Amino acid sequence: MRMSDADPARSQTPGSEREEGSALALDFDKLGGLITAVAQDAVSGEVLMVAFMDRNAFAATRTSGYAHYYSRSRGRLWQKGESSGNVQEVEEIRVDCDQDAVVLRVRQRGGACHTGRSTCFYRRLDDTKLVLRDEGA
Amino acid sequence: MRMSDADPARSQTPGSEREEGSALALDFDKLGGLITAVAQDAVSGEVLMVAFMDRNAFAATRTSGYAHYYSRSRGRLWQKGESSGNVQEVEEIRVDCDQDAVVLRVRQRGGACHTGRSTCFYRRLDDTKLVLRDEGA
Repeated sequence: MRMSDADPARSQTPGSEREEGSALALDFDKLGGLITAVAQDAVSGEVLMVAFMDRNAFAATRTSGYAHYYSRSRGRLWQKGESSGNVQEVEEIRVDCDQDAVVLRVRQRGGACHTGRSTCFYRRLDDTKLVLRDEGA
Repeated sequence: MRMSDADPARSQTPGSEREEGSALALDFDKLGGLITAVAQDAVSGEVLMVAFMDRNAFAATRTSGYAHYYSRSRGRLWQKGESSGNVQEVEEIRVDCDQDAVVLRVRQRGGACHTGRSTCFYRRLDDTKLVLRDEGA
């Protein structure tokens, strides 16, 4: 293993059960009780949004099969789409090497973004300005 | 706009320039000087890794065309692949609605993960256990 250019936070348990094992051991410590969650469209591969999960949000996601996150500003669990109906049915949960981030492969109902767009990443940087993307491209 | 089920952190500037405008105005405040960065393979669409950027890392990425991140544990800028050679050439930078996260669409040289694998998300949750994925699937 070449650890030298990896973030050392990832090398606290080199070769460990956390990286190589089959045990789910999510690391909620690095972000004060949260892990990063990336929602990715299971069909198109489009990255839809980035949010955070605490232990309860992760547990609720597993139990229900629908994406739940932790709202830092409201300080509570929320189900994506709980008001809008634009829920995310989770097809697969992927876990990264040091278990502080997950990718949710989801079936997104409606738009993922609160602006109504299909993804929150609807703009790209073009030199110094943001421009609208062709979504899905 | 339906804000009701969005994380309220995203609604601090509803309909604002930050969400709808063309000005790059990244929000480094929510994560103490950092934004979340998702590296996605520009060819396969695979999510490769999740990391963080401070202002310097973002600027270095733009200037050089290669992904730079901020290492929280080392407290410094690092270029992905600076030791291993497994650099990420950035084809496109996507910015999310509230400008606190970016997706880097990259050409990954070698494996993205310090374990040597093509992606850091090489495992998926199968009921209660982590199992190796067919990478690229």
